[in-house]
Amino acid sequence: MSPIEDLTRELQRLPGIGKRTALRLAYHLIKGEKEYIHRLARTLVRVADHIHPCPVCGNYCDGKLCSVCSDPSRDRGVICVVEEAYEVGAIERAGRYRGLFHVLGGRLSPLDGIGPDTLNIEGLVHRIEEAEAGPQEVILATNASVEGEATAVYLESLLRPHEVRVTRLARGIPVGSDLEYVDGTTIAEALAGRREM
Amino acid sequence: MSPIEDLTRELQRLPGIGKRTALRLAYHLIKGEKEYIHRLARTLVRVADHIHPCPVCGNYCDGKLCSVCSDPSRDRGVICVVEEAYEVGAIERAGRYRGLFHVLGGRLSPLDGIGPDTLNIEGLVHRIEEAEAGPQEVILATNASVEGEATAVYLESLLRPHEVRVTRLARGIPVGSDLEYVDGTTIAEALAGRREM
Repeated sequence: MSPIEDLTRELQRLPGIGKRTALRLAYHLIKGEKEYIHRLARTLVRVADHIHPCPVCGNYCDGKLCSVCSDPSRDRGVICVVEEAYEVGAIERAGRYRGLFHVLGGRLSPLDGIGPDTLNIEGLVHRIEEAEAGPQEVILATNASVEGEATAVYLESLLRPHEVRVTRLARGIPVGSDLEYVDGTTIAEALAGRREM
Repeated sequence: MSPIEDLTRELQRLPGIGKRTALRLAYHLIKGEKEYIHRLARTLVRVADHIHPCPVCGNYCDGKLCSVCSDPSRDRGVICVVEEAYEVGAIERAGRYRGLFHVLGGRLSPLDGIGPDTLNIEGLVHRIEEAEAGPQEVILATNASVEGEATAVYLESLLRPHEVRVTRLARGIPVGSDLEYVDGTTIAEALAGRREM
């Protein structure tokens, strides 16, 4: 098999990339600078060799601890629980959160065979139990999907015996959106969660 | 900069891949098997090191000549001219063409600074002039866009002095499409090119 076919086949294994896109990418790479291909390959190897989950929170890092866990200025009293590592970035970009994170590595989904043991849940309980000055609050920032909610409910019941406040992100109208286009369930949640002005 | 950010930045340079997709791809790679990342990197290096344009037709190959030019069973009497190398595959997949190819490497587009000298046009004229038993026919299979048509018109005028039949792909209704959704220009071309049943 020619290197072009090989490359097309490998690219097709990426999410959202079908045969036609893979072909287009392969030919784009071949037509472009060789130096870019080499740099991309080197970066891939560097990621494969050096990136690993942070032993404390499960976020990806290339050092001993991730940049949040190793930052002494972060508030150790709050842990924000997310499903996937890339969601840490979404919260960090919002620029408001100064606490720690905990990455589950997915969400409960029994139909896909993902139960509590598959996720990084034991690590979360461990962090709450073991820490001398444990966190006062755990924010459940799982997604607002059925599985995300189920995961949050499960975690809440698991953490209830511990002396820790368990909260979740507010549901409501996304900033900048027209009420007309917001679905009924979201409006119902926004009504239930209404606040004094 | 962390390897993840590096990888995201490199992936963003690919066509059709924005910041969000690049992030999603990077995290997908990191979450998956390391072996796949290494294999992808190796394939990229192999492509960069071994793939080059065929000296005869300009298609990409990893040998001395491309698979079409080196195939003795192909009809050397016809050359099909395409804009890009990946279009060779589109014609090959149709399974009807047994002649040779010639890849221009683009199309005339003066606004983008792409003139005849930028394209592999000299090579085409050379193939027609030099071959002992030159081709009897050149099929212009440039795209049915304004630039593609302009390129075909230019090539036709260039090849006219040579003893070679110059044809282009038929324009008409795409197989399987509803007349209702076909644009007027295509219908006009299909009418002009109508054939006896």
